[in-house]
Amino acid sequence: MSERVRIPRDPNNDYTSEAASRRREFVENQTGVSLHHLGKYSFDPGVVRGNIENFIGVVQMPIGIAGPLTVHGQHARGHFWVPLATTEGTLVASYNRGMRLLSECGGVKTTVVKQFMQRAPVFIFEDARAAAEFSEWLDRNLDGIKAAAEGTTSFGKLMQIQKFAVANMLYVRVNYTTGDAAGQNMVSRATLAVCEWIRANYPGAFEYILSGGIETDKKHSQMNKLHTRGKHVIAEAILRQDVLQSAMRADTRQIFRMRNISNVGAMMALSAYNGLQAANGIASLFIATGQDEANVAESHAGFFFCELRAGDDLYVAVTLPSLIVATYGGGTGLPTQRECLEIMGCYGKDKADKLAEIVAATVLAGDISLASAIAAGEWVSSHEKYGRNRP
Amino acid sequence: MSERVRIPRDPNNDYTSEAASRRREFVENQTGVSLHHLGKYSFDPGVVRGNIENFIGVVQMPIGIAGPLTVHGQHARGHFWVPLATTEGTLVASYNRGMRLLSECGGVKTTVVKQFMQRAPVFIFEDARAAAEFSEWLDRNLDGIKAAAEGTTSFGKLMQIQKFAVANMLYVRVNYTTGDAAGQNMVSRATLAVCEWIRANYPGAFEYILSGGIETDKKHSQMNKLHTRGKHVIAEAILRQDVLQSAMRADTRQIFRMRNISNVGAMMALSAYNGLQAANGIASLFIATGQDEANVAESHAGFFFCELRAGDDLYVAVTLPSLIVATYGGGTGLPTQRECLEIMGCYGKDKADKLAEIVAATVLAGDISLASAIAAGEWVSSHEKYGRNRP
Amino acid sequence: MSERVRIPRDPNNDYTSEAASRRREFVENQTGVSLHHLGKYSFDPGVVRGNIENFIGVVQMPIGIAGPLTVHGQHARGHFWVPLATTEGTLVASYNRGMRLLSECGGVKTTVVKQFMQRAPVFIFEDARAAAEFSEWLDRNLDGIKAAAEGTTSFGKLMQIQKFAVANMLYVRVNYTTGDAAGQNMVSRATLAVCEWIRANYPGAFEYILSGGIETDKKHSQMNKLHTRGKHVIAEAILRQDVLQSAMRADTRQIFRMRNISNVGAMMALSAYNGLQAANGIASLFIATGQDEANVAESHAGFFFCELRAGDDLYVAVTLPSLIVATYGGGTGLPTQRECLEIMGCYGKDKADKLAEIVAATVLAGDISLASAIAAGEWVSSHEKYGRNRP
Amino acid sequence: MSERVRIPRDPNNDYTSEAASRRREFVENQTGVSLHHLGKYSFDPGVVRGNIENFIGVVQMPIGIAGPLTVHGQHARGHFWVPLATTEGTLVASYNRGMRLLSECGGVKTTVVKQFMQRAPVFIFEDARAAAEFSEWLDRNLDGIKAAAEGTTSFGKLMQIQKFAVANMLYVRVNYTTGDAAGQNMVSRATLAVCEWIRANYPGAFEYILSGGIETDKKHSQMNKLHTRGKHVIAEAILRQDVLQSAMRADTRQIFRMRNISNVGAMMALSAYNGLQAANGIASLFIATGQDEANVAESHAGFFFCELRAGDDLYVAVTLPSLIVATYGGGTGLPTQRECLEIMGCYGKDKADKLAEIVAATVLAGDISLASAIAAGEWVSSHEKYGRNRP
Repeated sequence: MSERVRIPRDPNNDYTSEAASRRREFVENQTGVSLHHLGKYSFDPGVVRGNIENFIGVVQMPIGIAGPLTVHGQHARGHFWVPLATTEGTLVASYNRGMRLLSECGGVKTTVVKQFMQRAPVFIFEDARAAAEFSEWLDRNLDGIKAAAEGTTSFGKLMQIQKFAVANMLYVRVNYTTGDAAGQNMVSRATLAVCEWIRANYPGAFEYILSGGIETDKKHSQMNKLHTRGKHVIAEAILRQDVLQSAMRADTRQIFRMRNISNVGAMMALSAYNGLQAANGIASLFIATGQDEANVAESHAGFFFCELRAGDDLYVAVTLPSLIVATYGGGTGLPTQRECLEIMGCYGKDKADKLAEIVAATVLAGDISLASAIAAGEWVSSHEKYGRNRP
Repeated sequence: MSERVRIPRDPNNDYTSEAASRRREFVENQTGVSLHHLGKYSFDPGVVRGNIENFIGVVQMPIGIAGPLTVHGQHARGHFWVPLATTEGTLVASYNRGMRLLSECGGVKTTVVKQFMQRAPVFIFEDARAAAEFSEWLDRNLDGIKAAAEGTTSFGKLMQIQKFAVANMLYVRVNYTTGDAAGQNMVSRATLAVCEWIRANYPGAFEYILSGGIETDKKHSQMNKLHTRGKHVIAEAILRQDVLQSAMRADTRQIFRMRNISNVGAMMALSAYNGLQAANGIASLFIATGQDEANVAESHAGFFFCELRAGDDLYVAVTLPSLIVATYGGGTGLPTQRECLEIMGCYGKDKADKLAEIVAATVLAGDISLASAIAAGEWVSSHEKYGRNRP
Repeated sequence: MSERVRIPRDPNNDYTSEAASRRREFVENQTGVSLHHLGKYSFDPGVVRGNIENFIGVVQMPIGIAGPLTVHGQHARGHFWVPLATTEGTLVASYNRGMRLLSECGGVKTTVVKQFMQRAPVFIFEDARAAAEFSEWLDRNLDGIKAAAEGTTSFGKLMQIQKFAVANMLYVRVNYTTGDAAGQNMVSRATLAVCEWIRANYPGAFEYILSGGIETDKKHSQMNKLHTRGKHVIAEAILRQDVLQSAMRADTRQIFRMRNISNVGAMMALSAYNGLQAANGIASLFIATGQDEANVAESHAGFFFCELRAGDDLYVAVTLPSLIVATYGGGTGLPTQRECLEIMGCYGKDKADKLAEIVAATVLAGDISLASAIAAGEWVSSHEKYGRNRP
Repeated sequence: MSERVRIPRDPNNDYTSEAASRRREFVENQTGVSLHHLGKYSFDPGVVRGNIENFIGVVQMPIGIAGPLTVHGQHARGHFWVPLATTEGTLVASYNRGMRLLSECGGVKTTVVKQFMQRAPVFIFEDARAAAEFSEWLDRNLDGIKAAAEGTTSFGKLMQIQKFAVANMLYVRVNYTTGDAAGQNMVSRATLAVCEWIRANYPGAFEYILSGGIETDKKHSQMNKLHTRGKHVIAEAILRQDVLQSAMRADTRQIFRMRNISNVGAMMALSAYNGLQAANGIASLFIATGQDEANVAESHAGFFFCELRAGDDLYVAVTLPSLIVATYGGGTGLPTQRECLEIMGCYGKDKADKLAEIVAATVLAGDISLASAIAAGEWVSSHEKYGRNRP
């Protein structure tokens, strides 16, 4: 085999069953492997144009259904059945159990606090003082900048520019709202227009790079955890002590004590999330609903908070400040993905906030389920007793 | 609709087309949505037992093929065709381009440095001094602990125990090698045995929780980035200036200068990865090959390093210290996922290191491709010239 | 000795030589130690009222003089002699050498980019939605809030409120400019007034705590490194290759290469500063000039950046985003401390920016000096040659 | 004034009153400032040889005495009077109050868990595989390495080498115990010997730099917080609810609730310390006792942990994993500094652990004092009541 060998492409229309089949044959010839399943898809390959190149077929990832998940959101209201795609046994069972538990406790309250998508260019000057002058010029020229950005998009809005000065450079985060799209491409296009508008209008000398690295696209970062990339969404519930005891044989005071102890662990590890298993629910929902699966990196970051209340009920809250979801564009329109969105009433325009709320409520359900399991079964009885928050 | 409604299950055998179909009908009834595509799968539902609960069907995620990727690894050697599952347009094209470029430059050298999977219990004592005594006892009793752990697994090996003392607690990370499995469940079982062995043998009083939070399962953390969760793998290449100029119309000195500047951005943002798009390649390969998709959280962390060499060739290296991959168990045996592994000769025993090397080389290809694109097209000409590393 | 024993105090006037002497005798009696030196101070104890309680004398910390340090700042302009208090041998010599080197290269350009001091209360609500409503109310009521804050101070100005929502809470950072004072107490007072104004005017129910922890007073934090606590100041210079070679027997390309390598180390360690020895110069200047010595924690954080230019000259820059300095109030008026400020023309009103610039330039001098030393002497010749940036 | 002007030095003996006086005159001439106080020191300048260069006099920093601090340590046992050097009003009063409160509650239990000082070279190879081979060679040659290191020091012991592989490099942390010295210079010397021994014995090709940046000398880092630089020391106490209520008009449940809330703040800010004011006590004790004042950067990092116990007593603990203290060498022998050490019985050999315990207990006292103040006075009564942990 030579590295000169090229993957077959059909220059007229590469999104056909024939083109896909030819490529599978090519792979079979190159590797000697027989491909029986990859070619089994239930749609016309034309639908994946814009989603994939060198299409050869599909991976079939199993979906389990969980619920009902009772949500009292601003956008999601009612009982939801949640499709989770995974290959990890017990994941669906665990989330399902948590959803039922939370529903019995009265459901989950959800709130979308804000949303931002950004591109973060860096501007380079002769010295720090020239960068500082540019920074002031930026403030005075926001209207022009905003117009330049918004001329490239019908629904993106430039909301805010954050600025960070290092050496002779100004790193900026240009923050947009992007409607029901995740918007990464939209904000790149708009920010390129911003940079070029600046180049045409700024009187001083500078260079720029379209990304200076502080939007951390497809990466977890503290920056995004603080300043939102996607939706900043919060899910809250009151975990009733009586329900937990009867349904889970666990105790809210155990859970609270364990969270207090594992918060120290999270600080020690500098964990992106101090809760239990946010990434599981997020990844499963992302794959089921055609989200960009790499955004699990940004999206799984967040804060788990709990507090004992009167009668030992436990206030629990999951805060996901960087949850990237779309209900329009990308993979959301693919046949199976669209059906999963439709199951939750989340397909199409004006649904992204609703989906964000369901994701956050799902994460809370999974965390409560796992915390209860640990409290019930793995909290081994001790030789001697310390501490107060034990039954 | 009431939250008392329950998802149908077949107590005799829940992994049948009938059971799946009944659940789809249930969802259709509950939601009013027609499900035409979710039920289109090409395998007997019996195969997903252990991978999913409440199975209703599959999501079809498109796969594109990229390559050849030339790898000079310890385990992966030769030219590989790499199946990438994604719904994000241009991703496959970008990786494909990077793979061809690196192949033209002579290929990618890969090295698996080490591997560890861990469970991290916390032990709680009357005071810090008692915890310190326990810490010394642990060191003296490693043989017994190791035996207790390894009695629960045929291929897991307890390699090392790390200890961190806070207040009256000892947080420990029990590190194992786990062969070709990712091993999260194996190490939980083994560590529970460790804890119970300690409970039976330690003369002092203590409590424990099976997780104190410093293994950060399904979460990015600095702890895992430093101390490995999964494989610690490195991919290196020499990016030839002549090849880059002719194939990409880019310049190695531009790329180097941009990385120097974006490293400051990464430090500012505290980014989990200071390279470009590790999560894209990792997520796409994970989904295609039946990995646990939530492990993108841990796996995308790492270091991008580059250095100009003689003739302005650019040494580039991607270090992924926490890459979790398996070639056995989990989703790896599902029909489409197994075929994807087979395409790369990575299915089954003794293949996990090989897969890790291919993932790392793929990440390097994607990063080089994107860096070159930025250098070629988005590096806007400047009014005035500073810096030396420009053509 | 009993814990009921009480340190003697003079209720009429505790800031006299007699009161100090009585306390030294008390300590001598309690401990059996003879105190010959602690009581040797050259001022009337009345001057330390407001700086210390239970005054017994002074520690004498040696001061060395370094310079000249040539600064081309917005506020500091000219050649400065810099008093450094330390007990660490070679520190003064190292900074002195760096200052002379930078002066020979043409001096240091300094820029104060911005300043903020803050208090960061947390407001607690029934749920996240109530917190979100409060957040909007805050935006609408900035005028009243600003008036409430500024009614408590003659020179503090409320500039900006940052808001971070977690669970049912809103964490805010209230950012002020504070003139020539560091301003920690001023902003506490002003922010208490803000909180009480809100309590009187906000129609909804809430609790608050005056600090929710995100101003990180006396602690390093990424938050402060990003968003400034104190002055955000930058010092830049061009390190000339010929000067470095003749004065230091070092090479700019070595220094550049080492910084590229140690940047990876800084990312691995998550170091508060990726340069060399910021804390040395800062602590020495802080002690000499009566700054709050605990603020070394915040102030030493920052970014070191360098880039090779034409002729292998090296652009070097230190960015200190969280440098807390005062030239008025606190310890700045004590006799020896005031003299140290006066040596640099930095005592009194309208001098804080000037002092900040001198501190940043000093830090740059120390880093260049140490980097050159490593490059010259400790950069051991290698068996075989890689890399390009070596002579 | 010209930058060619040179600070006067006496080549025969630069540590005399005359030399210091001549330099003060020089500074007076250069700056026009009269220096009345800097020259008032009570010792022969010969004693600061090795502590300072270009000596011109001393800064007089006021000292207040606090206590008694009741400590039940392994090394510090009894009631201590603690000298604190500061110019920040209320600091001594606050620590004094906390010390008395803790003494009334039965005192502070302290434990030194471990100590390490390190130098962290980086070794550079042709590729990652060569680095990996070197890593294994290191393990096999620990005896030779240890002998090389310990040949340079009479009391340093090489305890452990940590290794981190990135690209073609191996970053190592060589960890030593250093007795009663802080040991930064000792470990540099020993590690240089290690590197040179390796150069003489390793068969392969490599380069090295004596510091790759992961010891983070004089910088806070997560690395040091996890892996200790200096002493890892813990101070614990039981804060009695009755004592707190009567002495402070505060409530343990308030303090606990506030810590739970501010822990979220610490995670958001990525604070080096999640307690209240560690840096205050540490800086004040460091200056009083001749420690390297820049080490406040490393030393103030740590964990504050608390837990409600039976009867609402509050278990509180401060963990300082990176506390750098010495009782021998450096500034510890200077006259006033030595007296401060003697007051606590901490001067000279075999006292460093004792001093570390007193510092940790002091930090706990300061944190408890401030937390109580916030709980008593600044915890503003709320419109409506949530949460349980309120009186």
